[in-house]
Amino acid sequence: MTLETTTPPPGGQQADQDLLARRFATLGSHSPLFYEKPLELVSGLGVWLTDAQGKVYLDGYNNVPHVGHANPVVADAVNVQMVTINLHTRYLNSRVVEYAEALLATFDGDLKRLFLTNSGSEANELALRIARQHTGHTGVLVSDFSYHGNTTSLAELTTGLTVNEPLGAHVRALRIPDASTMTDTEALELLEKSLEDVDSAIASLQETGHGVSAFLFDPLFSTEGLLQLPGGYIEGVAARVRAAGGLVISDEVQSGFGRTGSNMWGYQMFEIEPDFVTMGKPMGNGHPIGAVVTTAPLLDEFGRRNMFFNTFAGSPVSSAAGLAVLQFMEQEDLMAKAEELGRYIKGRLCTIAEGSPHVGSVRGSGLFFGLDILQGDGSQKPAPALTKTLIEDMRERGVLISRVGRDNNVLKMRPPLVFTREHADILLEQLEQSLASLNSI
Amino acid sequence: MTLETTTPPPGGQQADQDLLARRFATLGSHSPLFYEKPLELVSGLGVWLTDAQGKVYLDGYNNVPHVGHANPVVADAVNVQMVTINLHTRYLNSRVVEYAEALLATFDGDLKRLFLTNSGSEANELALRIARQHTGHTGVLVSDFSYHGNTTSLAELTTGLTVNEPLGAHVRALRIPDASTMTDTEALELLEKSLEDVDSAIASLQETGHGVSAFLFDPLFSTEGLLQLPGGYIEGVAARVRAAGGLVISDEVQSGFGRTGSNMWGYQMFEIEPDFVTMGKPMGNGHPIGAVVTTAPLLDEFGRRNMFFNTFAGSPVSSAAGLAVLQFMEQEDLMAKAEELGRYIKGRLCTIAEGSPHVGSVRGSGLFFGLDILQGDGSQKPAPALTKTLIEDMRERGVLISRVGRDNNVLKMRPPLVFTREHADILLEQLEQSLASLNSI
Repeated sequence: MTLETTTPPPGGQQADQDLLARRFATLGSHSPLFYEKPLELVSGLGVWLTDAQGKVYLDGYNNVPHVGHANPVVADAVNVQMVTINLHTRYLNSRVVEYAEALLATFDGDLKRLFLTNSGSEANELALRIARQHTGHTGVLVSDFSYHGNTTSLAELTTGLTVNEPLGAHVRALRIPDASTMTDTEALELLEKSLEDVDSAIASLQETGHGVSAFLFDPLFSTEGLLQLPGGYIEGVAARVRAAGGLVISDEVQSGFGRTGSNMWGYQMFEIEPDFVTMGKPMGNGHPIGAVVTTAPLLDEFGRRNMFFNTFAGSPVSSAAGLAVLQFMEQEDLMAKAEELGRYIKGRLCTIAEGSPHVGSVRGSGLFFGLDILQGDGSQKPAPALTKTLIEDMRERGVLISRVGRDNNVLKMRPPLVFTREHADILLEQLEQSLASLNSI
Repeated sequence: MTLETTTPPPGGQQADQDLLARRFATLGSHSPLFYEKPLELVSGLGVWLTDAQGKVYLDGYNNVPHVGHANPVVADAVNVQMVTINLHTRYLNSRVVEYAEALLATFDGDLKRLFLTNSGSEANELALRIARQHTGHTGVLVSDFSYHGNTTSLAELTTGLTVNEPLGAHVRALRIPDASTMTDTEALELLEKSLEDVDSAIASLQETGHGVSAFLFDPLFSTEGLLQLPGGYIEGVAARVRAAGGLVISDEVQSGFGRTGSNMWGYQMFEIEPDFVTMGKPMGNGHPIGAVVTTAPLLDEFGRRNMFFNTFAGSPVSSAAGLAVLQFMEQEDLMAKAEELGRYIKGRLCTIAEGSPHVGSVRGSGLFFGLDILQGDGSQKPAPALTKTLIEDMRERGVLISRVGRDNNVLKMRPPLVFTREHADILLEQLEQSLASLNSI
């Protein structure tokens, strides 16, 4: 498939403006939209999206359509289940059990139980709730530029986007170390200093009576800009949190389901076993579903103390969507392909970085990759405005990407997992040309 | 359709036990299940459900399959959208705007904007979050036997089921008055006393520095046992809450979408306009979807102060499911039918009540109806054990119902809205026989 554009239909431009006005009159004007001129997408297939004017885009951004836009296997599984039965879990149904077994089979160790939810927010919210009840503490450690969901409890520990709630008195935000441009010796020094900061944060939570209930982190630190941790950091934090009586929550909303290529779950990049693994986005290929995977003792304790129920979660249809995603991933060997393709992409990104004064570190893992965009004057200063220019230019070139990071200067490329080398080549070629055009600005 | 049972397939009984064991090994043993012997349902159509042994049940309980189990119109709408495109709302898409317009068209007055969510819990959580930010207060008034969702913020104000969290210091639980067995004079006295209690609760929140952010209520008071309020109570509470600077949240997860027959939204039974209407369960006929409908100023203020986004909510597929439900309701005139059928059912329930020593008040509105089950010794004492016996017996008779209320003695009958007189006659006949069998216990 090529990226050629077709002639816009008559009135196409006007239709966009009308739709935008209707959206503002219902959802309001603050509901976030990508791009200077919002993009109306009307159809999708695999890694391709088509806008209202018939222009086709390569999707280099969206991880929710994990097994591809409009995946017919998932659509069929949902349809068959919808015309059969869809009910809550207070009646027995085999579909949720089949799905739970398939999902739990991807975990090792003591992670043998799960709660199903309807979103990543609901999953993180529940994991924190369980951790607080279990530990009797309220304190939480998070990264100082992170996002884990939109409930009040999660807003109180949000540091990576604007919320009106002040950071909770029970929250300590850790500066997560990034060793991407460091020598081994520098990385070791950074590790030691960073773990001292963790000790201080824990001591502060204990001194103020909050104690430590949990450390909540995204193994890819993607909102933070796809940080490259010094080896041993996560293991060090987890050990300190556990020593303080706290629990470890790995938020796999972005890093889970084989995204890293090397592992099904992001935490498996480290030598730890979390107490909770939370998940969402890619889980049902867009169908609203999330989960908290945990240990039998933690699940049972919570179940004894609380009549916990979630109406939609674990329904046969939600389970069928989740099961179809897992089966498709396995049949198509998507994780192994992501690992191989990720290596190829990283190699080419390194070449691109060497050839452009605007590119710093190459970041990411598997099919989640990033590039630091710099001023290009040798100062190594981040260039958020140029990053935005690149993203808008890539859209014009028919490729959708975005950005993350504290300085909003890390390109965020996280395509559906059905991305192939052909697709990668298109993305990389367009990116190279777009970067080259920066030099002429 | 008759309620005859077929011969169980060989090993059917064993299969149930195996499935239960597999469920316990994945979801744990505390995940709630209905009935002494859990019921495995394998298919549904309209108001009918079939279990693993081929026995058919009339669904007198489930409100989530609002337009009927396995509704083909909803299934088709979801399927067409799934094979076309499904993405988040940061790209423009017309489906979410069409749905938002159709949903908002069912509201009067200033309720002109909405946030979409994935569940009723997410909706109530968000409404409270907005109310707290707007008012600068944290205090909440709820009923003293209610449930509004499973997040931490909602657990802190849960009074109607077991949660490990203590009632929040910022929460006051009101005893909601029930005038169902009262004369007009008694009801007026009860109203006055109850509103004095509200004044005291508000004063207490103000004295302790919490102030009043919101009054959160289900217009049908269904968890409470389908209370019949003295006229003017809700209006009185709303006026007092507003005078204290608080906002009013009508939780329509159970009472919305024409359930009461008389109105699309439960709050329309009263002379009030809430600041927030929250919804969930029946909204997508089982597809996970919820919403907060509110005013433009409240939505805009929150939008300015917070980068608020919900990945799955408002997707084209969720919107297509919601739109199909609204369209089906309108085409089949389900609300008007619910009103007419509700009146018929109430009349017959009154006759049943007169004929049985075990039945007290007839409760409910539209297609949400209840019966107080009493000891039958003239003492008017609630009979929770007999109520349970009735529900189990009704299951044997092929009709699914449940129970609610502080004393767990109010039969809860809340069928899909496609229930007809033929179905009602089956339910009522079986209920009459089941009640008669109590006399012989």
